[in-house]
Amino acid sequence: MSLDVPPGYRALKETDVATYLAGIPAVAATLGGQPAEWKVREVGDGNLNLVFVVEGPRGGVVLKQALPYLRLVGESWPLPLRRAFFEYHALTAQAKVAPQHVPKLFHFDEALALTVMAYLNPHIILRKGLIRGTVYPRLADHMATFMAETLFATSDLGQPAAEKKKHTALFCDNIELCRITEDLVFTDPWRVAEANRWTSPQLDLAAAAVRTDGPWKRAAQELKLKFLGEAQAMIHGDLHSGSIMVTESETYAIDPEFAFYGPMGFDVGALIANFYLAYFSQSGHETRPGGRDDYRDWILKTIGSVWTLFDERFRALWNNAHAGDVFAPALFGSNQEPLALKAAQDAYMRRLFVDSLGFAGAKMTRRILGLAHVEDLESIVDPDLRASCEKRALKLARTLMVEAAGFPGIAAVNDAARAVQREAVK
Amino acid sequence: MSLDVPPGYRALKETDVATYLAGIPAVAATLGGQPAEWKVREVGDGNLNLVFVVEGPRGGVVLKQALPYLRLVGESWPLPLRRAFFEYHALTAQAKVAPQHVPKLFHFDEALALTVMAYLNPHIILRKGLIRGTVYPRLADHMATFMAETLFATSDLGQPAAEKKKHTALFCDNIELCRITEDLVFTDPWRVAEANRWTSPQLDLAAAAVRTDGPWKRAAQELKLKFLGEAQAMIHGDLHSGSIMVTESETYAIDPEFAFYGPMGFDVGALIANFYLAYFSQSGHETRPGGRDDYRDWILKTIGSVWTLFDERFRALWNNAHAGDVFAPALFGSNQEPLALKAAQDAYMRRLFVDSLGFAGAKMTRRILGLAHVEDLESIVDPDLRASCEKRALKLARTLMVEAAGFPGIAAVNDAARAVQREAVK
Repeated sequence: MSLDVPPGYRALKETDVATYLAGIPAVAATLGGQPAEWKVREVGDGNLNLVFVVEGPRGGVVLKQALPYLRLVGESWPLPLRRAFFEYHALTAQAKVAPQHVPKLFHFDEALALTVMAYLNPHIILRKGLIRGTVYPRLADHMATFMAETLFATSDLGQPAAEKKKHTALFCDNIELCRITEDLVFTDPWRVAEANRWTSPQLDLAAAAVRTDGPWKRAAQELKLKFLGEAQAMIHGDLHSGSIMVTESETYAIDPEFAFYGPMGFDVGALIANFYLAYFSQSGHETRPGGRDDYRDWILKTIGSVWTLFDERFRALWNNAHAGDVFAPALFGSNQEPLALKAAQDAYMRRLFVDSLGFAGAKMTRRILGLAHVEDLESIVDPDLRASCEKRALKLARTLMVEAAGFPGIAAVNDAARAVQREAVK
Repeated sequence: MSLDVPPGYRALKETDVATYLAGIPAVAATLGGQPAEWKVREVGDGNLNLVFVVEGPRGGVVLKQALPYLRLVGESWPLPLRRAFFEYHALTAQAKVAPQHVPKLFHFDEALALTVMAYLNPHIILRKGLIRGTVYPRLADHMATFMAETLFATSDLGQPAAEKKKHTALFCDNIELCRITEDLVFTDPWRVAEANRWTSPQLDLAAAAVRTDGPWKRAAQELKLKFLGEAQAMIHGDLHSGSIMVTESETYAIDPEFAFYGPMGFDVGALIANFYLAYFSQSGHETRPGGRDDYRDWILKTIGSVWTLFDERFRALWNNAHAGDVFAPALFGSNQEPLALKAAQDAYMRRLFVDSLGFAGAKMTRRILGLAHVEDLESIVDPDLRASCEKRALKLARTLMVEAAGFPGIAAVNDAARAVQREAVK
């Protein structure tokens, strides 16, 4: 494949940034002072983009520019610049219903494939906080709200069919980024793939076992089928703990370039998966055995609250902010029918719960056996210790994928995680 | 709403047709002779279009032109001419895999919203054959093939995700025709709607009961949710017995202007629904009680064969013609895994079966309580007799919608239909 760079595109350098931003009045006003006073630094630690932080006398902004290749791998893996377009449209839709949880957008430049957003400061990437063992008391509440608001509003309950079809068509074109997920999350960990890697030799047997595990593979493909065909709502598409920025009091979801109309459980599952990965990696970060026990409990409590609050809010939106063409409130107005509506809501949320567990399992598996790993585990220097954390995570991941329908609720999932954590690792 | 007619569009008259067709070499060659020799007659009995049959010395063609309004209702219900565009794209996709079951396409004129197709002669509309009591020995085989081939090829098993996303986006724009289905099939029969009608007063109580039946309404909305959000494959979208043309040896599916990426069970269900409507209306067409018993048996046998053969062929395509990105055959190659693949196929076909029953029930209900009825029942002159047929059909329809998951297979559904047919009507 050749790099498909449209005329007019160039990757900005640190020295270009101030001049570029000076031309955008809202940004110049936010930064304050003169362009010569603005401090620019490139901080991108992602795989896909240049990220410049720009600070002026009054405030800061972030300029995020898409690169035409996957940065982690290099120019051999081209990626369409158009993902900036999808990120812009996703951010715009999310900001309509959850403005407090997405960065304010100042500017979108389609030709340069860049967006200019508020600089979140002193927020840090949630993943780093989870590795440090920092408690975020409002995190569950905020993420439940973000997911309930954005997923509901773009579902068939939250918008009329005509609008949803138009928005769906727009995101149907986000083919290449969807394909990354399709391959890396749902397929590669279950086959021999060049890009796969794992803690070796400790996990060699486990990786081989996954590749001949019929029920596990079937579960992965059933989930992939949902990912490919269930256009339930506009999902963030990459809602792991590296896509969330936090302080103790604020929470922002960033980087929705993987957005498209897909299964809602993929977002909920991504978040839950990354909490469980954080949970199982605590053994690698505690300074004495049991030193992170309280933090482990907090993580599980947070997982429980995320689901419970999400469920509560999604139902509340359904009951109070219905704006779609299905389950019209007027249809369920008389004496008997609220019971039928409640039963439908229970079934809907149950399907979403089971989907979320399955997707969580797939996301955990791919972070241990696939291409892209997570710092929670990678930062554990001792490979034996890391492998023991990974084996536990992998064990829960398989259970979530193969036996999702057997869990009566989120508390039972946390119980299963605790049981896995207590067991000796084989 | 105003009629949105693009410049260049005009509704053709019989006297325009020969001149128009003379300009299309493939059509002129098919008709043979000179334009002055071509006989043109308008035969449209549908609700949406002008249909001209044109016969020349050598052969015939059909010219189908979209009208900018719903013909049944008149100019007060505008319909986009663009549906001809969707019909053209659907026919083209169907012809790739089931050319023996769709009319050969000669010409598409986007500005005039018209298509020119092979004239099917002496084929008649299947619905008329079912009313007459004609046996079509190859019908089940042909329709099972048509559905298996077209649904499989456009599913995530039959085409790569990138192609499916592009094709899905194309049909996302078929908003207005989808809305007709959304309203008329899934909503109006369960509420007071001006367009609803039924055999009155015989069915007044039944119609009122439907409007307060919580579980039935819930089932209708669950099905609508699938219709709105499950982009499983390109479906025909209107596959009733009025969209099928038959002889004893040939079967064609026509009129796919409602096509879009939706749940496959909607096509299978539409077909099954119309067979059951035909089944229950036989009492209105037999000249002595029991006079159509053999024909009733043939209809049920045909329903059984449609499902059984569809199931068989869809699985065969999955095993032998897989071309999608999910359930890649290479993933299920070793000793244990074919069992997992078989289990996945069983679950997939089971979901499709249950969906089909539900959609069948919704399609039956709307033909009795909604706007557009079927000739099978409408042609029964005695309103008491017609109402008794309709009540039986309605009873099975509710069971199919509310208890779909309880049917172990198609034979059990036929048993339920027989039981309803035997019962006294209340």
